[in-house]
Amino acid sequence: MPSTDKPHEKIVTAAIVVIGDEILSGRTQDKNMAWLAVRLNEIGVQLSEARVVPDIEAEIVAAVNVLRAKFDYVFTTGGIGPTHDDITADSIAAAFGVGIDHHPEAMALLTRHYETSGIEFNDARKRMARIPDGASLVNNPVSKAPGFRIENVYVMAGVPTIMQAMFEEIAPELHGGPKMFSRTIGAGLPEGRVAEKLGALQKFYPGVSLGSYPYFRQGEVGTNLVLRSIHKEELDAAFNELEAYLIGEGATAVETT
Amino acid sequence: MPSTDKPHEKIVTAAIVVIGDEILSGRTQDKNMAWLAVRLNEIGVQLSEARVVPDIEAEIVAAVNVLRAKFDYVFTTGGIGPTHDDITADSIAAAFGVGIDHHPEAMALLTRHYETSGIEFNDARKRMARIPDGASLVNNPVSKAPGFRIENVYVMAGVPTIMQAMFEEIAPELHGGPKMFSRTIGAGLPEGRVAEKLGALQKFYPGVSLGSYPYFRQGEVGTNLVLRSIHKEELDAAFNELEAYLIGEGATAVETT
Repeated sequence: MPSTDKPHEKIVTAAIVVIGDEILSGRTQDKNMAWLAVRLNEIGVQLSEARVVPDIEAEIVAAVNVLRAKFDYVFTTGGIGPTHDDITADSIAAAFGVGIDHHPEAMALLTRHYETSGIEFNDARKRMARIPDGASLVNNPVSKAPGFRIENVYVMAGVPTIMQAMFEEIAPELHGGPKMFSRTIGAGLPEGRVAEKLGALQKFYPGVSLGSYPYFRQGEVGTNLVLRSIHKEELDAAFNELEAYLIGEGATAVETT
Repeated sequence: MPSTDKPHEKIVTAAIVVIGDEILSGRTQDKNMAWLAVRLNEIGVQLSEARVVPDIEAEIVAAVNVLRAKFDYVFTTGGIGPTHDDITADSIAAAFGVGIDHHPEAMALLTRHYETSGIEFNDARKRMARIPDGASLVNNPVSKAPGFRIENVYVMAGVPTIMQAMFEEIAPELHGGPKMFSRTIGAGLPEGRVAEKLGALQKFYPGVSLGSYPYFRQGEVGTNLVLRSIHKEELDAAFNELEAYLIGEGATAVETT
């Protein structure tokens, strides 16, 4: 059952650039990548690459320029606060070769925000209104300081709750492609036992991506077999064949999520 | 107190390439990056970039070839099992333009392992002995199937317990540079309040990297200030100045790790 290429089924791809020394030092465990991967897939966008880069402008510029040419969307997280190490906006301006200045709309909304809260809108906080020329703002319902979009690049905060809220503001304007369906069988057999059959199945169902992930739990060796495809029928056919094979081998074969 | 460049203090850098569709799909949360970042720093190697790439040979080749030219060490995780989607060894051979074949030493140790355990050493399992020409093996004390090293690239398993055990086999042969020291102050002040002082401190202590990370806990807004440097005295001087400033501002200023 070979998969057929239908024009309306063009895969839509995205990359993430996680900007932050705190991830590379191991001090902070990144949580944005996995969250975005799942959420993007729900709207038909496949996360296809992720990079973690340090707080160095040249590194951010290089990563963003490679990835925005290669994928439909690029999402960055981190580095848009008020301190000296928040260099994402300047780096994105440099990547696009455009200027950067205090954005009137961003200035207005931050002025209102700090007036209301009775907090001084000092120069450091005004840094958060610096937006590359030609970019549009991304609303921040949590802490007000906006993200922004320039062409296919979306710039978001690094704090997960804020990033997630920003993403929900962006989500309605993203143009997704076909959704990736996924089914998983947990098999109580080691990978080496099922590998040959898996290889044959993969050849027979080229439209299904068949992943094999060993697990070790309380001394038991098993394998999670993950089938992914934009073709639901082909996915189900491959799944059923794999499940029947496993049961025929006397294995536990439990569908999990 | 400007930092001085001493020849013996050359920073040693590394990159990680996480190979795996399961990370990009969001199904699995990567844990190897943060663990390696911390462990590498303990031996004087700074993680400077990380990439997550899919199970596609061309993508693995491109990432490895860019990063091995740019950094002192490259570590890959994932894709060295017995199944069809385990394509790391072939991809690394392609990256180096060398052949790949069943490695006699790897064949010998896997033969012994499967004989002892009474498990069939089938063709799929023999795939785990395929090693690029010129590579040396990395011992796997957990599940035997080895990783390997070719030039400055170390290829390890993706399962965290196995990756960690492999890394401990590798660690003694890595040549670290100066260790990065780190101190953290948790300040009960928002970033926007401390930003100006931080910027000034950063200019005065160019040998210290000063990172600012906001936190939001039970409605309280605060900032973790992380100071990192290979120069312990300069780090301590910057820390003391920052702490005194925060206390002068009436802020809580608690050193954390």
